This record gives sequence, structure tokens and C-alpha cells, in this order.
Amino acid sequence: MIYVYDTTLRDGAQREGISFSVEDKLKITTRLDELGVHYIEGGWPGSNPKDAAYFNKAKDLKLKNARIVAFGSTRRTDKVVSEDANIRALLEADTPSIAIFGKSWGLHVTEVLHTTLEENLKLISDSVGYVKSKGKEVIFDAEHFFDGFKENPQYAIATLKVAQEQGADWIVLCDTNGGNLPNFIADCIEEVKKYITAPLGIHAHNDSDLAVANTIVAVQKGATQIQGTINGYGERCGNANLCSCIPIIQLKLNLKCLSDESLKKLFEVSHYVDDIANNPPVDWQPFVGSYAFAHKGGIHVNAILKNPLTYEHINPELVGNRRRILVSELSGKSNILYKIQELGLDIDLSSLNVSNLLEKIKQLEYQGYEFEGAEASFELLVKEMLGIYKPPFEVKGFRVFIDKIDDKVTCEGTVKINVDGTLEHTASEGNGPVDALDTALRKALTKFFPKISAIKLTDYKVRVLEGSQGTSATVRVLIESTNGKSTWSTVGVSPNILEASYQALVDSLAYGLSFAND
Amino acid sequence: MIYVYDTTLRDGAQREGISFSVEDKLKITTRLDELGVHYIEGGWPGSNPKDAAYFNKAKDLKLKNARIVAFGSTRRTDKVVSEDANIRALLEADTPSIAIFGKSWGLHVTEVLHTTLEENLKLISDSVGYVKSKGKEVIFDAEHFFDGFKENPQYAIATLKVAQEQGADWIVLCDTNGGNLPNFIADCIEEVKKYITAPLGIHAHNDSDLAVANTIVAVQKGATQIQGTINGYGERCGNANLCSCIPIIQLKLNLKCLSDESLKKLFEVSHYVDDIANNPPVDWQPFVGSYAFAHKGGIHVNAILKNPLTYEHINPELVGNRRRILVSELSGKSNILYKIQELGLDIDLSSLNVSNLLEKIKQLEYQGYEFEGAEASFELLVKEMLGIYKPPFEVKGFRVFIDKIDDKVTCEGTVKINVDGTLEHTASEGNGPVDALDTALRKALTKFFPKISAIKLTDYKVRVLEGSQGTSATVRVLIESTNGKSTWSTVGVSPNILEASYQALVDSLAYGLSFAND
Repeated sequence: MIYVYDTTLRDGAQREGISFSVEDKLKITTRLDELGVHYIEGGWPGSNPKDAAYFNKAKDLKLKNARIVAFGSTRRTDKVVSEDANIRALLEADTPSIAIFGKSWGLHVTEVLHTTLEENLKLISDSVGYVKSKGKEVIFDAEHFFDGFKENPQYAIATLKVAQEQGADWIVLCDTNGGNLPNFIADCIEEVKKYITAPLGIHAHNDSDLAVANTIVAVQKGATQIQGTINGYGERCGNANLCSCIPIIQLKLNLKCLSDESLKKLFEVSHYVDDIANNPPVDWQPFVGSYAFAHKGGIHVNAILKNPLTYEHINPELVGNRRRILVSELSGKSNILYKIQELGLDIDLSSLNVSNLLEKIKQLEYQGYEFEGAEASFELLVKEMLGIYKPPFEVKGFRVFIDKIDDKVTCEGTVKINVDGTLEHTASEGNGPVDALDTALRKALTKFFPKISAIKLTDYKVRVLEGSQGTSATVRVLIESTNGKSTWSTVGVSPNILEASYQALVDSLAYGLSFAND
Repeated sequence: MIYVYDTTLRDGAQREGISFSVEDKLKITTRLDELGVHYIEGGWPGSNPKDAAYFNKAKDLKLKNARIVAFGSTRRTDKVVSEDANIRALLEADTPSIAIFGKSWGLHVTEVLHTTLEENLKLISDSVGYVKSKGKEVIFDAEHFFDGFKENPQYAIATLKVAQEQGADWIVLCDTNGGNLPNFIADCIEEVKKYITAPLGIHAHNDSDLAVANTIVAVQKGATQIQGTINGYGERCGNANLCSCIPIIQLKLNLKCLSDESLKKLFEVSHYVDDIANNPPVDWQPFVGSYAFAHKGGIHVNAILKNPLTYEHINPELVGNRRRILVSELSGKSNILYKIQELGLDIDLSSLNVSNLLEKIKQLEYQGYEFEGAEASFELLVKEMLGIYKPPFEVKGFRVFIDKIDDKVTCEGTVKINVDGTLEHTASEGNGPVDALDTALRKALTKFFPKISAIKLTDYKVRVLEGSQGTSATVRVLIESTNGKSTWSTVGVSPNILEASYQALVDSLAYGLSFAND
């Protein structure tokens, strides 16, 4: 078994531009647990209030597969271990497992910690031993192990030995600067195995574009824990990308990591984490990118149709991805039919004018609509074009008024709706213009549809589509809603953020009232 | 010497969304030649008119370093080689070198070409021999070599042998589907070397995130030509990224590829090709990305200031990149001091209470502010805390009114400002609420600050911080502005998107009027 240790929430959050809220971190934790990873490194509780808040809330999560890990350094040189603030914060995080990183590179010991090689061994020994004595599973991260080994192999290995002597459950070898090559990683591990019997892990950074290769070679040499992040997030060039490492280990090395069922969730988890981080997905990402199994015209497509093996290294479905055949209008039609079948829509396909629908979708996508993440809007569109859907209400108009005087902000929305000939005109305040509109709309509808009170917005996302047009750029709003039983997503597009939000809101409520299981 | 064979213009152009004009291809050719690559694969002259036009014009380029290569397949099964249209197009391209690809995998021979293994050897032999007889340098690309070797090693090697017998100058081993692992690549090459004395090349695809590793291991095993693309462009997940392979070979394997001076152009060439292709650069790209040498965590920055080797695997200047220090909640005092120095702020550091400033930044970041992408807001904050900045104007209040009646949307903003005791009250329409506010604010300020007309918004980004709170979630707005000479970024955070945008807008205009070079 190869254990997967995810550090998206800690090392991953170091990527420039990524800043997870506590809520984001809890959501990702739940998804990673569902994926079946074994360890989730949640943060560094001693370093900032957000991480401490996360550990406090994470206790209430009912995880099925994963152990939460708190991360921190060895004790300070001027502290007794039991009084070291960082070590105490680690224990207070109240997680079953704790990762302690220590220095394995002399350069860091003397130039950064300003201490002696001997004293550094004591820091490691004290910290691992103390945390171990509190009944925790201890993961010792040997920071800069490979660079340290290059400088002084005996000393680098000595840092592992003291952690092992104090009962560390895992010894993780880190290529912290991401500068080492796979053959060197392999040679180092061969040497380490002569002295270390504790299970080994590998923590690789991607500064040389080799993090995945270094992780794989470590596993081939006997490491049984891989550390990395979803989509390879991380400081500088990122960490080893778990979305690549996991399928390689499972499908190419034929070692067990996740269940086959879990492996199929990889595509979805990759896109989910990008959504939460508000990163556009990297389409050419191996295994889980939308281009990964896309074939352009000509000889490739011809060959693929004869035998997919000719230009596909794995079956895309194994990682939850799918084959895409690009360009031709024909493939467009089959995509739409595929999508309709995939959604399980109760539609007689023979009655469907696919060309009209395709043309409409192409127009909307050109304007900036995206139906991949807004299946409820897609379903409403298809049903409307088929004449089998009548909106449950009509919005005659809305007004929103925002006012900031002497630092006091007021926000009011009014809305006029028509339900089967009956008009309703209401007003409401809100936290901002979109909220005021949302609140007024719900207030107006409650009278006719009491069950609307069960419909809650669970996500609201805004993406500016054309940055260069400043504040008049087109924006796309994606909304996720739930009634407690089912969850659905809708989309709106406009240069006016309120209009875009309005479209997505109206679709969301209409879908919830008409089609959602409740 | 390791020869660099660039196929950005041929294989690279297969990435979904990339379409180079002939003019684009000529420009990139010139840049690649200046960089010092040895071969530039310009296209497949038999496949489309654009590629034929390129070869026609490329003859007039005065290249200093590179040879242009035309690419095409072996002859068709039903043609005599001298009458094969594809082979004739290759010769008509009039390049010094020609790349011919042939099948090395039985599966492709029987299922795609629909011919026998024996006949396929004849296709290779005829095509290489004929083109060689015309005085060309011939590069034989053994398509799917590694997959073929896995199926039938004798046959895969036989395809190389016939090319060698006909005088091929290079034998290039292709991992066309990108599915193979470095240790297998290494084993195959050891075996190939028993039969092939012609110089070997490697052509790796990135479907398993291992293209760079596979290229490097091939070089370690004796290959002397690397094929790849700038930024790893290519069909599906792309080709081996030359921006990673070249520095690894030169700086880590200590083999000669380019001159040291040329290596320094790598950053610039990477960004140039992205510009031409109209791709946003991948900031976390190894070696040449803008995050590649950026440091965020406090302990990292502290160490970097002591010795850059501590967290940098190479000196960024060797590839034309530079070090960047970021400011965030994960930072310590060292980041902030470094940042202040880097910004060249005219501040007496000894007068600065860094702990207060750090505390303030951590609080703001906890609320959702992010200063690493908003350096102008950071500068205003620091200067305000030091009491050395007085805003050039004060906004007394604003109102925004949005109205949608019968599908007609109206949007109006009003704003009241105070400049040195003089009040100005104006109104303006806009494309949406944020645009209306922006327009009104600028209108009010123009009277006092005519130079505000030179300040333009170049980017406007919105990120919802806590999705689960629906439309009342906190949003962060990042704005980038320019006055034509300098560019700066500002941030605003609020549950009200208009308030958040307002903060970022006001910072942006205040900074532009107070501190931007113009």
C-alpha cells in the first residue's frame, strides 16, 4: 500500500495568489477524505490564527478515510521542548498525527538556525520524542534531506536516525528546493535504507519540473508515503502533483493507493479544488486536464476510432476524465447527445433538433456562458427549446439602490414578479446589491411557493472574462444551490454583475421549484 | 554537446487553442535562432498550405545558429517513393534537414497503416534512402518507439536498423503517447545502443507528467539530441518543455547545450512565445515562471536573506529570471522589510514599528485582503501608518441605482468628493454598478486632477471568499491600473461587491495621483 499525504491546505496554499478561507479548507478536507487520501495536512497551527481556527473546526468533521495532520517545526534553540510555543500549538491542534520538520542540511543549521550540527540533532530528538510521548503518530519531515546528503551524507542520515530512535512513525525525505534529479534521489534512498527501518516518505518540489518523476522513483526504491498537492499547488513551482502521482502509481506501477472507484473521482476533485481556489483549471494538465484525452482532426482521430490505444496511454475513464474529439460539427452533435444522456434527462432524443440546440449553445458559449459547471441552466435551456418547460414565475423588473454616506452603507432591492397572472411587488435590504436582489426575489416568491424557503445558495462565484476592459468587462456568475436533498448549478453572463447574478439566481430558483428532487 | 531540436512550430502548434500565422512562425523562428537552438522544425509541408508558405518565406531568414527542418511521414504504401506527394513536398520545402517519421509499433502498422511488419520496414528504408540520396541531413523519428519496444523489442529495433542502414543522421526515439516511465526509457536505450551507432535523440510527450524526466534520463543514457517545445506546448498534455530541459542539462548535468549568454535569454523567449500564441504565461512554470523564485513564507524569506542557496536551487539570473519576495499572512518581519526596500520606499526603516505593521497586515489578510497582488495598496498602507501620506481626495459618499424594467437595464452612479475643502458632486451612467461608480468618480476628479485621464484600468478581478454564505459572502476585488508609464495593483474587500470595488478604485486613483511615475 502506498499512503497518500495531501498538503494542498498547507504547502499548496503557499502558491502565490492562493488564499483559502477556513471554510474553503474545511470543504477541501471533506472532498479529500471522500477521495480516500490517508493524511490531510491542514496547516501550521503555530503560524497564524486562520490555521488554528481550522483545526478547531476540523474536529467536528466526520472523516471516513483520512487523518488530519498538524504541521510545525522542531523546538526553538532557546526553549525547553515542553515550553516551546510552536510544539504546544501542535499538540493543542488535537490531531491524531503531527508532522515535525527538522533540518537535515548543515548549511541551514549553521547559517539559518545559527546553531551547531550537534545541537540540531538534539532539537530533532527532543521534539520527536516529546510529541511521541503524548501518544501522537509522528511524521518526521527531513527538510532539504537531499541537498544535505549531497553536502554531508553522514550528517543527513544522522538526522533521520535520531528521529527514528525517538519513535518517529514515518521518515519523510524532502527535496525542499526541488533541485535534485531522479537518479540522485534513487541513489540517496538506497543509502538511507541501510540505516533506516522506519517507513519512508517522499516530499518533492517541482522547481526542476521533476517532482512527479522524483516521487515515482522514490516509490520504486521503496518509499511508501507520497506527499503532494492537488494540481501541484505550492510555493514557487509547486509540489508533486498528486493528480499525476496517484494514477501513475496505481495504473503503471500497479501498486495500491486508492480504490479503483476513488481513482475515478480524481478529475472531479482536481476541478473542485481549482474552483475553490478560484484558479482556472490547467487544461493541458496530465490525466485530469480537459485536453488530456482530446484529439484533433486527421490521422490521430482516425487511428483513435480504430483503436484508442493508438494515441491514449490509459483509458480516460479510469481517472474520471473523458475522450474528446475536437473540431468537427459532427463531434459537437455527439457531445450534446452524450451530455443529454449523461444528465439522464427525460427527453425523447429523436424529437430533438440537435443542430438548433448546438447552434444556440455555441452562441451562448461565445458570449461567455459555460454549461460544464451549470448543468441546471443547461437542462432548463434544453427543455425550453423542446417546449416542455414553462418557467414557474416571471420577473417583470427589479431595482437596486446602494448608498454610502459617512461610511454607512445601505442597500435595498425591489422586485416585481408575475405568477399565473398575480403580481407581487416587494422590497428588501441586503448585504450588497446581489444579496438585496436575492432577498427581495425570495420574499416575493415565498407567498406562492412556500418550499422556496428550503432552497439555499451554497456557492456564488464571479469570474471576469475580459480583464482588459476594466470595470465594464463581461463577468460570468456561477451559483450552486441546494434544497437539502439535491444540489444544482446555474450560470449568468453580462457586463453588469447584477444582471449576470440575476440570471443565475432566477435559473436557480426556477430549477429548484420545477425539477429538483425534494 | 547536446543538440536542441525545437518543434514549437509543428508539434507545439497542436495544442488546443494555438494557431500560429505564417508571420508568427517566422518571428518565433528568428527568436529561437537567436536563442541558439540547433534545429527548428517548421512544419509539415505536405499537410497544409500555411506550412508550405512558411518554408517558402523561411528561406529568406538569415539564421545564425539553427537549421530549419521539414517534417513528414514515410511514403504511402501504394506509392513509389519518388512519386509520393508527401516526400516530394518535403524535398520542395528546400530545407537542409528533413525529419521523417515511421512506425515502430506493430499495433500501428497492422491496425492503422493496414500493412505487414515487413512492408513497413520497406517504407522506412525507401523513404530515408531516397531523401538521403538527395543530399539532405535525415532525422528519423521512430514514432511510438517505446510502446513498440514493449510489445516487440526485436521489431522496434529493426525499424531503427533499416533507417541507420540507409544513412539516417539521427535516430530519434519517440514516446508518442507519453505513457512511459523513466526507468523503462533508460532500459530501452541501453538495449538500443547494442545495435545502433548513429547518434540518438529523444522525443517525449507529457501525458504522464514525465516528459522532462524522460528527456533527462535519455541524455544521461547517451542521447545527444533533445526534441521539445517552448513552454511545453503540444497536443493533449504537450511535449517536453525545453525551458526546463535546457537549464537542467546545462546547469545540473553540466553538458553543453547553449552558451551561458543564450541561457539568460530563456525567460524572455518563454514569455515572447506565450505572447505570440496569446497564452497567459504559466506563472509557476519551473525556471522561467514569475513565481519560480518568489518567496512567501516568513522562515523562507528570513533564510533567503541570509543565503539564497537555502531556498533556491539555482541562481535565477542564469536563466534570465529574478527573485521576488511576497507579503502575506504567512510572512514574517523579514518579508515586510525586504518588500519595503524593494519598493524603494523612501522610509526610514528604523522609525518603522514592524510588529504593528505586521499585525495590521495579518488582521487585514484575515478579513480577506491580499497584498501580494496589490503592492500599491500595501505602499499606501505603510505610508499611512507612518504618517507620511495624505490622500489627495476624500470621498464623502456615493449612490448607485440599478433598474431593470421590461428587459431594459439602467445603471447610474453619483459621487460626492472633497478636495482641499472644495466639494464636487457628479453623476454618471455605466455598464454595471461598478462601472457607473468608476465613471462618476473619475468625472468628479478630472476637474482637480487633469492627469487622471491618463489612468486606465487594465484588469479587474473578483473573488468570492466564502462561497457558503451565498450572495452575502465576502468578496475581494483586485484592480490593476496603468498611466502608460507604470502599472500598479490595488485591493478592496467587503461583503458588498460595490464597496470592495470602491476601495480598490479609490486606492488605485489615489496611488496614481500621488506616487506613480508619469
